[in-house]
Amino acid sequence: MILDKINYPNDLKSLTVDEMNILSQEIRELIIKKVNTTGGHLGPNLGITEATIAFHYVFNSPEDKIVFDVSHQCYPHKILTGRKEGFLDSDKYLKYTGYTAPEESEHDIFKIGHTSTSVSLAVGLAKARDLKREKGNIVALIGDGSLTGGEALEGLNNGATLGSNFIVIVNDNDMSIAENHGGLYSNLELLKKTNGMAENNFFKAMGYDYLYVEEGNNIEKLIEAFCKVKDTDHPVVVHIHTLKGKGLKFAEENKEACHWILPHTLDENKPVYEAKEDYSSITKDFILKKASKDRSVIAITPATPGVYGFDSEFRNRLGKQYTDTGIAEEHAVAYASGLAKNGAKPILNIMSSFVQRTYDQMSQDLCLNNSPVTMLVYWGGLSSADCTHLCCFDIPLISNIPNMVYLAPTNKEEYLAMLNWSLEQNKHPVAIRVPNVDVVTTGIPDKTDYSILNKFKVVEKGEKIAILGLGNFFNKAVELKDLIKKECNINATLINPVYMTGIDKELLEELEKDHNLVITLEDGVLDGGFGEKISRFYSASDMKVLNYGGLKEFTDRVPLEDIYKKCGLDNKSIISDIQSVYAAEQAKSGKFYTFR
Amino acid sequence: MILDKINYPNDLKSLTVDEMNILSQEIRELIIKKVNTTGGHLGPNLGITEATIAFHYVFNSPEDKIVFDVSHQCYPHKILTGRKEGFLDSDKYLKYTGYTAPEESEHDIFKIGHTSTSVSLAVGLAKARDLKREKGNIVALIGDGSLTGGEALEGLNNGATLGSNFIVIVNDNDMSIAENHGGLYSNLELLKKTNGMAENNFFKAMGYDYLYVEEGNNIEKLIEAFCKVKDTDHPVVVHIHTLKGKGLKFAEENKEACHWILPHTLDENKPVYEAKEDYSSITKDFILKKASKDRSVIAITPATPGVYGFDSEFRNRLGKQYTDTGIAEEHAVAYASGLAKNGAKPILNIMSSFVQRTYDQMSQDLCLNNSPVTMLVYWGGLSSADCTHLCCFDIPLISNIPNMVYLAPTNKEEYLAMLNWSLEQNKHPVAIRVPNVDVVTTGIPDKTDYSILNKFKVVEKGEKIAILGLGNFFNKAVELKDLIKKECNINATLINPVYMTGIDKELLEELEKDHNLVITLEDGVLDGGFGEKISRFYSASDMKVLNYGGLKEFTDRVPLEDIYKKCGLDNKSIISDIQSVYAAEQAKSGKFYTFR
Repeated sequence: MILDKINYPNDLKSLTVDEMNILSQEIRELIIKKVNTTGGHLGPNLGITEATIAFHYVFNSPEDKIVFDVSHQCYPHKILTGRKEGFLDSDKYLKYTGYTAPEESEHDIFKIGHTSTSVSLAVGLAKARDLKREKGNIVALIGDGSLTGGEALEGLNNGATLGSNFIVIVNDNDMSIAENHGGLYSNLELLKKTNGMAENNFFKAMGYDYLYVEEGNNIEKLIEAFCKVKDTDHPVVVHIHTLKGKGLKFAEENKEACHWILPHTLDENKPVYEAKEDYSSITKDFILKKASKDRSVIAITPATPGVYGFDSEFRNRLGKQYTDTGIAEEHAVAYASGLAKNGAKPILNIMSSFVQRTYDQMSQDLCLNNSPVTMLVYWGGLSSADCTHLCCFDIPLISNIPNMVYLAPTNKEEYLAMLNWSLEQNKHPVAIRVPNVDVVTTGIPDKTDYSILNKFKVVEKGEKIAILGLGNFFNKAVELKDLIKKECNINATLINPVYMTGIDKELLEELEKDHNLVITLEDGVLDGGFGEKISRFYSASDMKVLNYGGLKEFTDRVPLEDIYKKCGLDNKSIISDIQSVYAAEQAKSGKFYTFR
Repeated sequence: MILDKINYPNDLKSLTVDEMNILSQEIRELIIKKVNTTGGHLGPNLGITEATIAFHYVFNSPEDKIVFDVSHQCYPHKILTGRKEGFLDSDKYLKYTGYTAPEESEHDIFKIGHTSTSVSLAVGLAKARDLKREKGNIVALIGDGSLTGGEALEGLNNGATLGSNFIVIVNDNDMSIAENHGGLYSNLELLKKTNGMAENNFFKAMGYDYLYVEEGNNIEKLIEAFCKVKDTDHPVVVHIHTLKGKGLKFAEENKEACHWILPHTLDENKPVYEAKEDYSSITKDFILKKASKDRSVIAITPATPGVYGFDSEFRNRLGKQYTDTGIAEEHAVAYASGLAKNGAKPILNIMSSFVQRTYDQMSQDLCLNNSPVTMLVYWGGLSSADCTHLCCFDIPLISNIPNMVYLAPTNKEEYLAMLNWSLEQNKHPVAIRVPNVDVVTTGIPDKTDYSILNKFKVVEKGEKIAILGLGNFFNKAVELKDLIKKECNINATLINPVYMTGIDKELLEELEKDHNLVITLEDGVLDGGFGEKISRFYSASDMKVLNYGGLKEFTDRVPLEDIYKKCGLDNKSIISDIQSVYAAEQAKSGKFYTFR
């Protein structure tokens, strides 16, 4: 294997083009095998293999610095920068993250997982180089749909003014995560059609010199292009036309499906997943039904429709009643607000991690204008995800915005009733945290009037202890109630708070009559979240409160059970906390078990 | 006066061009007189007067809908849409807001004060029109620097795909709030130089049809252009070249200074403001001193340098060590992170209201990467500002991001020590909330080691009651301490918490020994903020806590005293709350005044 001799970028320098071509095949095979075993980003990495080899052949990392956008296309880069064992040795498949990670290698500058950041970050690197009067090339590798994100466009605009070395490689694989979207892509099409010669050129209009490489998977052509721009004294775009999924027929033909794959997707007897009901399928059914009856209903995704299970059949059935804005979360929120203000019924689907992009749009475009948009927030909760894709910050982020109504359903019927209420009302911006757990169904239609804001539901009235189990963690609350009965012989009150954006003062006051401990459970970081509002409410009273949820930290692929343990979110810890509170009270006054 | 006959847009339709020219002079005079009395946005409104008249002459609002970006350029629009009394009658000068406001008129669609939102919002309006199969023109009026904001660029990209009527008027007045910045503006220059004929055209590259109007203050030419695009069946950009400050020599010659003016700026004997020390001047001195000694120090502003007192002299002195990114907050944060990662020392200056644009960049680009950036957050606090420019949400927004260190200085020496520490350390992303109150100085250099995170300062040790006075509100805490002495005969402990991103557990536990009430005071909304963290800490203990701060609401030009009163932030309310807590405890056990 050629790869045997390659441990670091320098080892590439002596290879011939033929050897590099063989190397790219070797790398590709390793990626296919590994990703098919562990799951991960497949198509983007297969498409960028040659460009990565050519980059490291021409440039001298880490003096020359490359920033990978999204960084899920960094697998070939990892293999070439001291981490090939993570692809060769199946025992080490999980040793390295799926994104650039500075703690792994000096060839990675940033941890990156959200899109459209590379250009802005690289402009900073370049400016620092200039301030310090140092040398070296600064390269941003963007594409695969990231180009339309506002941060990328802002970065391009300012990068053009650097007046010094700055190279943007645009990896144009004709795709966003799903199809490409927007006017800008028509210009990219034109540029490809004219072999880069069209007078009207987005990149030139943004102030860049420009170079086009039609054969973006041809190492020789790439080396030629990179040599031309290396050590340039001004900002330049190298637009390379690559093939997503290159070298694997199935991936080339199923670009969207192979963007990210589950383990064993490529096996001959690939595992068949039973099509079972989940909250995505419930959402899809709801949207299709509503949309067919009301042409003002429209579903929106800022890219990643796959995250919500919005397959092409679903998208086709919705037709004009579906918009994929591409990677453009800010626009998606403002767009939804505009739709709602003009009488349409928008349902904006967004992942918890990416809703972070839109705080100001939620505040100004949506909530200040009280636009009746329905936002569905997916995957919210603590998880074993990579540190770049955590979904545990949406409760603090969304619930402290005035006018917003943020709901936490606990079962299918509730979720459907909330969806329906939200879509048919016109007073509030509403966000719903799509449950991130198995579907629970009561079988009884939910008749709650959700327009009575901040009304918590008392599911079972008990005494002494009240458990507020929010959304995903309502099931934990049910479990805890049973355990409290068993361990403490107390018949606790079980409450479904429903609303994350407000508190039920009347109920909380009522609890003071015959309860002395309130427990809150939320599937997200505690800081700025729901439980703290309950603690504040009772802060000057005698009610004791215990808040359970996540810690304020970036966890990185930590098993969920370990996270729970660290947060004291396991039943044993909670019971022990309860017993401590009771013991302290009893020691003090002996009156705790007596109703006040 | 022509204006006597004009109450609503329809009244314009019968005017001749000559009459409209007279009208524009009348409108201009009203704006100058009013703005010089009340203060407000001057230059942008003088520049857009003719375009507004032409718009309402050609289009039929409100069936045709216009969305004003930033909306501080809507004064002529307000005069023409039933609100001229707000400019004619000095008693009614403050009756209408300085931004579009749907509650004032059906001709205003949105409340808008942050920039770069118009295109995205208008795309939503247009799509809703299409879904409902209705007619009418949808127009976004953008410019005056807003074009480079990510949300605008994302919106342009998606607007191009509408396939139906959509008109973007680009008001190109050669300016951002200060100078224009970025590569895109070089294309605008080229287009102006070629009378719109240049082949390389940013707007065409984004998928728009394009029309150029060199004389953007000529009503006849504007009417001609607007007639051409009215009822277009596809997306089109009308690029109009206007003169900011048009018609007022002083404003034409001082574009930046006249973007927004203080009352009486234009008077012959204009008020002279004594140049007194404030936290902006302290910041400027600090930056200049540091930058002259260390060429890796760089100050950044995402536009609005005037907000920070960064006048042209200051900017010129910094030279390459200063970047105005233009309106591009997201980019500014990522850019700063890149600078820091490559060894520079960036100081990013941003207004609390606009920091809302950057949550994801703070989280992902900055904090996940632990980039040692210094962010200065200005104007943070409750205020009587317009609902579009509130600055009271930054504590919840910033302080719940992992790895961030968010500091609240209480006097000049502390502020300087924090600045210095932040700039010279390389472990943490640091945000400092620049005090929004008069300068307090101790005269004694602050030697605190701020690298010992979350260490609160006990300023005066007392008993029973501890007051945590955060940042701007430390002075309130001092006052309250005196009052508690007087009213309750208790010598309270006075604490300066310093850190908003963490709590001093050791100190808080220590307080439990000889205190039974903790009071928190913060200048921002309580929800998700600092006080709730203290309440959570004590939630299962006997310590009583009272949290004071703002309510979660969009206040709109409410006098600060009224806000304080509504929040119970006046001394009388706080003393009464304290007495209630004590009375309740005494009634219960008689033991409250005894140390535990």
